[in-house]
Amino acid sequence: MSNIQKILNVELGNKSYPIYIGNDLLSDKSCLEKHISGQQVMVVTNTTIEPLYLEKVKNLLSNFEVQVAILPDGERHKTLETVNSIFDALLEAKFDRSATLIALGGGVVGDITGFAAASYQRGVDFIQIPTTLLSQVDSSVGGKTGVNHALGKNMIGAFHQPRAVIIDIDTLDTLPIREFSAGMAEVIKYALLGNIDFLSDLEKNIDSIKGGLHQEDKELLIDAIYRCCAEKAEIVSVDERESGVRRLLNLGHTFGHGIENALGYGTYLHGEAVAIGMYMAAKLSQLEGNLSVEDVDRVKSILTLAGLPCSIGKYNITATQLYNAMSLDKKVIDGNIRLVLFLYLGNAYISQDYSEENLNQVLSEFCHS
Amino acid sequence: MSNIQKILNVELGNKSYPIYIGNDLLSDKSCLEKHISGQQVMVVTNTTIEPLYLEKVKNLLSNFEVQVAILPDGERHKTLETVNSIFDALLEAKFDRSATLIALGGGVVGDITGFAAASYQRGVDFIQIPTTLLSQVDSSVGGKTGVNHALGKNMIGAFHQPRAVIIDIDTLDTLPIREFSAGMAEVIKYALLGNIDFLSDLEKNIDSIKGGLHQEDKELLIDAIYRCCAEKAEIVSVDERESGVRRLLNLGHTFGHGIENALGYGTYLHGEAVAIGMYMAAKLSQLEGNLSVEDVDRVKSILTLAGLPCSIGKYNITATQLYNAMSLDKKVIDGNIRLVLFLYLGNAYISQDYSEENLNQVLSEFCHS
Repeated sequence: MSNIQKILNVELGNKSYPIYIGNDLLSDKSCLEKHISGQQVMVVTNTTIEPLYLEKVKNLLSNFEVQVAILPDGERHKTLETVNSIFDALLEAKFDRSATLIALGGGVVGDITGFAAASYQRGVDFIQIPTTLLSQVDSSVGGKTGVNHALGKNMIGAFHQPRAVIIDIDTLDTLPIREFSAGMAEVIKYALLGNIDFLSDLEKNIDSIKGGLHQEDKELLIDAIYRCCAEKAEIVSVDERESGVRRLLNLGHTFGHGIENALGYGTYLHGEAVAIGMYMAAKLSQLEGNLSVEDVDRVKSILTLAGLPCSIGKYNITATQLYNAMSLDKKVIDGNIRLVLFLYLGNAYISQDYSEENLNQVLSEFCHS
Repeated sequence: MSNIQKILNVELGNKSYPIYIGNDLLSDKSCLEKHISGQQVMVVTNTTIEPLYLEKVKNLLSNFEVQVAILPDGERHKTLETVNSIFDALLEAKFDRSATLIALGGGVVGDITGFAAASYQRGVDFIQIPTTLLSQVDSSVGGKTGVNHALGKNMIGAFHQPRAVIIDIDTLDTLPIREFSAGMAEVIKYALLGNIDFLSDLEKNIDSIKGGLHQEDKELLIDAIYRCCAEKAEIVSVDERESGVRRLLNLGHTFGHGIENALGYGTYLHGEAVAIGMYMAAKLSQLEGNLSVEDVDRVKSILTLAGLPCSIGKYNITATQLYNAMSLDKKVIDGNIRLVLFLYLGNAYISQDYSEENLNQVLSEFCHS
């Protein structure tokens, strides 16, 4: 049964688009079809997702000229070279400006495909079909696309909005549990930075959401995804280019990117690194006098319930290494590291005037000497 | 004497910017300074322009942290790899989102630098200092940036508007005469496609403009550049993304890109290929019944006066090869080649319903069998 349970319209003037969230949407031809304006369609996916869902998506596209680009799986392939391989395929197929790219996969596939769509012939349409929880809540809204560079994550990219996002939560049935947890890190982020009621609901429902076997559990999950997308959409609609309030969405990310960068991408999943980063942000917020010990424990507790790490664990990284990796992050203006901290639980703010000593204390606590 | 003779404001809402046109602007510190919002500035130029003008520009930037990226000269370096070398330099210098890139050079430097600015950290500021006539009239307005791909010209890029454009016509003193003529092809294009009075003025003044030694000649040149930029600005302001009237600016370009593509980039300068292309468009327009023989001769005459070619000459290329090279051009929608033709001299239109037979006749006339 095709079942669009929720539709969220992301309001961005002439770049507005809908997000569909529901069951079995990969059987809903009209949902996808109506957002394709030309005849040429390229589905971009990776070697992991291809055997699972490519045929289903191709079945929806019988009215179009369809090409497929299959990328190698993994963050390490999120490079300009991989984007260029999509350009090769598009040009070999003589695809023109009326083409539509469809990103079928997780955040890496979405980011690469989005940037390819932004840059091919200076911009063609694209549609996202995110198949991981992380990409469903994180990449569905905001239009951020891009790739990594050897010297830093997401350093090359564009803002490019999709024509539509189709979130079929049935695709999460094949998602490894570790990746599901990593996605929960972003879900929890939305609760922590802006909605204490959502945090309470997550604390109550997280086992059911993780279980996800019964229809009512699926409805809890659909509701959680919807709330994340809606919160992000509200923020992005007032700050598309990330010059102000949108930076709140980086809660845990400057720490997290630093961890990923210092340890090498792939040691932790992105969501895992962000989880550690959010806990570090909570610790620093405590030292800054904004959070109580109980608040910090509550952050740790929900992350742990979601199956997420709260320490860098066995990995050998010094505070200085982490600091340097963080300072390469693009959220740096004129040399000072800008961080998202807690004002109180459920409310975050952007700070550059925290105590450097407190930051060092947190870094030392989480790193090896 | 610093001498801003003309200022044209390109109106694009919050992306509006000024174009300064005059003498000795590379000695005018405030003109450049006021369009730089951060502290980090990277000047991107090439090996030809560096010894001529880099020091002058650096002298204007004594209040900033300045880095320089020097690219190899030539269209064949207008690639994703070259853009990536700029990313390398930006990241090594730890440049952040507040950085400004300055493109010092011709169209190739401008296109590459603009795309690097569009894509670095999803978009940073850039300023254009075009040093060739072609780039002064063509790249100053419109925000088109990008690079070539082995399978086609300008296939990868972005729309990204500069913060300001500074046209110092003194830089044309060092421009080889062949390149000056190539720039005149674009000047003539603006006359041909939209302004018959401008065409008459050019026919009267072209020798003085080419001479350019006396102040009054320079004023004629400044006026011609201003008229081109103003005409382009008017068109772009109503059609930034090239979905309609902006396509008129492709007069001669689909033929021209086809010639460049079939012969290999660099055989003809871009402006030379466009000149041949405009003459081909005139010939086809005559076969379509829109131009008289006298009109076509007038097109040939002004191009010849400017020192431009009106035939493919000695090069060995068949009509089929040229047709195939043209059909790869990005102005193709759903398989039909869209061309800009003359309705009458001084007025162009976009056509997909010309006679295929007439096109073949023109291609045969210009190509070897």
